[in-house]
Amino acid sequence: MNDIYDKLMAVAKRRGFLYPSYEIYGGEAGFYDYGPLGSLLKNNIENVWRKFYISQEGFYEISTPVITPYEVLKASGHVDEFIDEIGTCIKCNASFKVEELKDEKCPICGGRVKKGKLNLMFETFIGAKKNKHAFLRPETAQGIFVNFPMLYEFFRRKIPFGVVQIGKGFRNEVSPRQGIIRLREFSMAEAEIFFSEEKKKHHRFMEIKEEEMRLLLNEEEMKMKLGEAVETGIIGNEALAYYMALTKNFLLTVGIDENKLRFRKHKEDELAHYANECWDAELYSERFGWIECVGIADRSAYDLQAHMKASGAEMRVFEKYEEPRIEKRKVIRLKMDKIGPIFKDKAKIVKEKLENMEIVNEEKITVEIDGKVYEIGKELYEIEEIEEKVTGRRYIPHVIEPSYGIDRIFYFILEHNYKETKKEGEKYVILSLPACIAPIKAGVFPLVNKDGLPEIAREIEKGLRKKGIMVVYDDSGSIGRRYARMDEIGTPFCITVDYQTKEDDTITIRFRDTTEQIRLQRQKLADWLKERIEF
Amino acid sequence: MNDIYDKLMAVAKRRGFLYPSYEIYGGEAGFYDYGPLGSLLKNNIENVWRKFYISQEGFYEISTPVITPYEVLKASGHVDEFIDEIGTCIKCNASFKVEELKDEKCPICGGRVKKGKLNLMFETFIGAKKNKHAFLRPETAQGIFVNFPMLYEFFRRKIPFGVVQIGKGFRNEVSPRQGIIRLREFSMAEAEIFFSEEKKKHHRFMEIKEEEMRLLLNEEEMKMKLGEAVETGIIGNEALAYYMALTKNFLLTVGIDENKLRFRKHKEDELAHYANECWDAELYSERFGWIECVGIADRSAYDLQAHMKASGAEMRVFEKYEEPRIEKRKVIRLKMDKIGPIFKDKAKIVKEKLENMEIVNEEKITVEIDGKVYEIGKELYEIEEIEEKVTGRRYIPHVIEPSYGIDRIFYFILEHNYKETKKEGEKYVILSLPACIAPIKAGVFPLVNKDGLPEIAREIEKGLRKKGIMVVYDDSGSIGRRYARMDEIGTPFCITVDYQTKEDDTITIRFRDTTEQIRLQRQKLADWLKERIEF
Repeated sequence: MNDIYDKLMAVAKRRGFLYPSYEIYGGEAGFYDYGPLGSLLKNNIENVWRKFYISQEGFYEISTPVITPYEVLKASGHVDEFIDEIGTCIKCNASFKVEELKDEKCPICGGRVKKGKLNLMFETFIGAKKNKHAFLRPETAQGIFVNFPMLYEFFRRKIPFGVVQIGKGFRNEVSPRQGIIRLREFSMAEAEIFFSEEKKKHHRFMEIKEEEMRLLLNEEEMKMKLGEAVETGIIGNEALAYYMALTKNFLLTVGIDENKLRFRKHKEDELAHYANECWDAELYSERFGWIECVGIADRSAYDLQAHMKASGAEMRVFEKYEEPRIEKRKVIRLKMDKIGPIFKDKAKIVKEKLENMEIVNEEKITVEIDGKVYEIGKELYEIEEIEEKVTGRRYIPHVIEPSYGIDRIFYFILEHNYKETKKEGEKYVILSLPACIAPIKAGVFPLVNKDGLPEIAREIEKGLRKKGIMVVYDDSGSIGRRYARMDEIGTPFCITVDYQTKEDDTITIRFRDTTEQIRLQRQKLADWLKERIEF
Repeated sequence: MNDIYDKLMAVAKRRGFLYPSYEIYGGEAGFYDYGPLGSLLKNNIENVWRKFYISQEGFYEISTPVITPYEVLKASGHVDEFIDEIGTCIKCNASFKVEELKDEKCPICGGRVKKGKLNLMFETFIGAKKNKHAFLRPETAQGIFVNFPMLYEFFRRKIPFGVVQIGKGFRNEVSPRQGIIRLREFSMAEAEIFFSEEKKKHHRFMEIKEEEMRLLLNEEEMKMKLGEAVETGIIGNEALAYYMALTKNFLLTVGIDENKLRFRKHKEDELAHYANECWDAELYSERFGWIECVGIADRSAYDLQAHMKASGAEMRVFEKYEEPRIEKRKVIRLKMDKIGPIFKDKAKIVKEKLENMEIVNEEKITVEIDGKVYEIGKELYEIEEIEEKVTGRRYIPHVIEPSYGIDRIFYFILEHNYKETKKEGEKYVILSLPACIAPIKAGVFPLVNKDGLPEIAREIEKGLRKKGIMVVYDDSGSIGRRYARMDEIGTPFCITVDYQTKEDDTITIRFRDTTEQIRLQRQKLADWLKERIEF
């Protein structure tokens, strides 16, 4: 009767993976706690992500605050654009996303629904007088963008470079009714990679261009190699394609089922306000259908441009030409004998401003002095074309952003690896987690609770923990019961100390997925495990 | 002229450890960003902390939301007690903590100061109508307490057990003027260890009781062994003493100077509303003096009791006696012939309630029915003493809490390890970080940028990164300049590939603190480094 979600969430709660937040107070929709095993699993997922994006890609992580001043999110467009259209029932006062409504009627009481807009950011106020308006960040990305000038220095003024952030994001969802799939407070891992605008090429594109991907384009599914997708313009550039391949590789490494993964291209009208192009990695759930878990977006120069405009900070990078170039440029030459009498003591400022200005329209030249705009009559200037030696150019870099929803990926890892079988007529659950993310790497058991076996098992437990391998000791119930407890939480290996251990210093290792057993020298155990839990 | 704080923060910003948040918008007091190297360092500190509290102590981590509903923090006492007394100048409107004021005058303009109170929690509102009052958590501890019933199940109903949380905490400081020392959004690592109330003994107390500690008690400093401090009642119980020792051990491991560490006991009038006894680990700064960085508190049963009362959830644990005991208990015996006519159809409920009630005052018995309280006249009941077989008892566990301020510890690690010397007449900075927390473990350099040396160095870099060892490749400037760059950011080792490498496959390793150099077989390098960066 129960579907996989209900069964899974029951196990997840009972075994300490996930707890509904504030349950003793009746719970709070849109919030979830990671319990003891959940927290280990989540940390492991994030550390595998770090290995991909930091150790291998060579990016760096930063960590910025959750509380973000109004002006930052006004500039980024979130104050005006991070909005849901909502409907509120005038009879029972319940609220819904407009896309959840079939008609003008309330799905709960049938009353008439009034439409409106809701900004989805949580608000707060900073300071003793609580008068400084701020929000909880809707994404970690802005913390990276506002630091761009410092990060550009850190990377010794060379692009491309990548910066990542793993942390909390917030979204005051209208009516979160999908458990851990739709959270108001969630964990995200985002990478912002800064490219030269015309060169969204990737130096490792060669390695992934033969990779075949399952793509969804205007409701139509197709299989296509990444190289072909870029050539035909289905995927806008090499960088996007490269991070799609990396995303696939990451998801499979942490245990996502390849048959339940596809990449869907956003339609024009669903793109976020900052995105040029976006591909979602969607994962399939038996309960929820296809759900977006990673977004890989081309944010163009949108954010850096917006912050440059709002803050005045230099967000452009300098690209030195290989050889200095002679470039033609049009400049304004003012007739100072006429300008002088008109602008008097401001004439010098007018000259400075206009002669350094980039000309947009030769027919209409304006200048701003102390907040007032003056138009300069045609009789006051001439346009001259000059030649200049130019050593390079300044431009605002473009950004490619893979953005991962960690909580959803966490859930899908559980769903894709949850296996229910029967053992001696009883329901038997196996969670086939990859060893690299399993919360507990091995159970350590004494065969019996006497004759010194518990002491040896305790010693093994302590030694492995000291080497940073998360294992648990268990001496309660039959060995079969102990295997079952470990299978249910995804522990890949079980180590048993028996009488033979006392004779030849070997232990048995039992494999979760095959139930096969081998014997191993005890002193080889740590390395044997390490090899299997790294990826 | 500049003191150590200014010098250090300049290096920290230039080299990517710390950035003032939102600087391009003029900055926001009380917020700091961790840059690329800062983030690595902070993660390393937290992972060493995990090794102490999770791998070694056997505790488990959980992760709960930052947004906390009103009712939770009302119950915990924070709505009423998490308050600063503040003064606001009626002339210039600036605000101050009362303890910062010397008299009734404003330190800025001399105007008269009006006193008031300020709750220090950041407020927000949940939901489409933004009508559900909530706060950003002031501590991570409450997320653990409200999950106690589930955690007790997870630990198979056995205490003591410990649960930790590492995450953000928030405090809307009145006027944060001390940079990273006083943040409005900070990182904390907290452990809540649940004990039986009379047994705040610790099974490893024997191992630490000879440890000599520098204690501060009522302004008086003394050196004392932990065993003696517990015996004489200076430290209230073994558990507090054990976690003080563990805290000291942790702080020294991450690079805190032992001569700049002491433990100060809170006076009665400065204890937090939830604490019975509290010891602060204070660290000494040349700029700020002694600063609290860790608090080790005996929270008694305060929090669990408060949440049990407010939520009705069972927070008691059951302790089975070794043998069942016969215990005497007083019970109320109602005279039902008299009760019946008075309470009519409610008589049965009255009987049930009263006969199971714990008697507080034999002379005044009251009962609550449907929200109304009735006093039961003496003529309606008798008190009887009965004997019962009792198999165990229920009680609310007590909590010992070590609570670490990660940002402050981060700062003090930098200050205690910052060394300024001269080299060839120039200022030369060495950051003597322990290898276990250094952001970069090694620099990898080709001696010259030709003859295949860069290729070998790149290979070494890639191989070490693949094994999870954070190293950077650098081929820019002289070897001396590269050493200097690494010394300044605390990199313990520098690896140079030279012509001999091509002959015998050895590289040189140069030590940061001694500048000593050795040669090593290249294939031994990864293990050699691993041994030194683990602790």
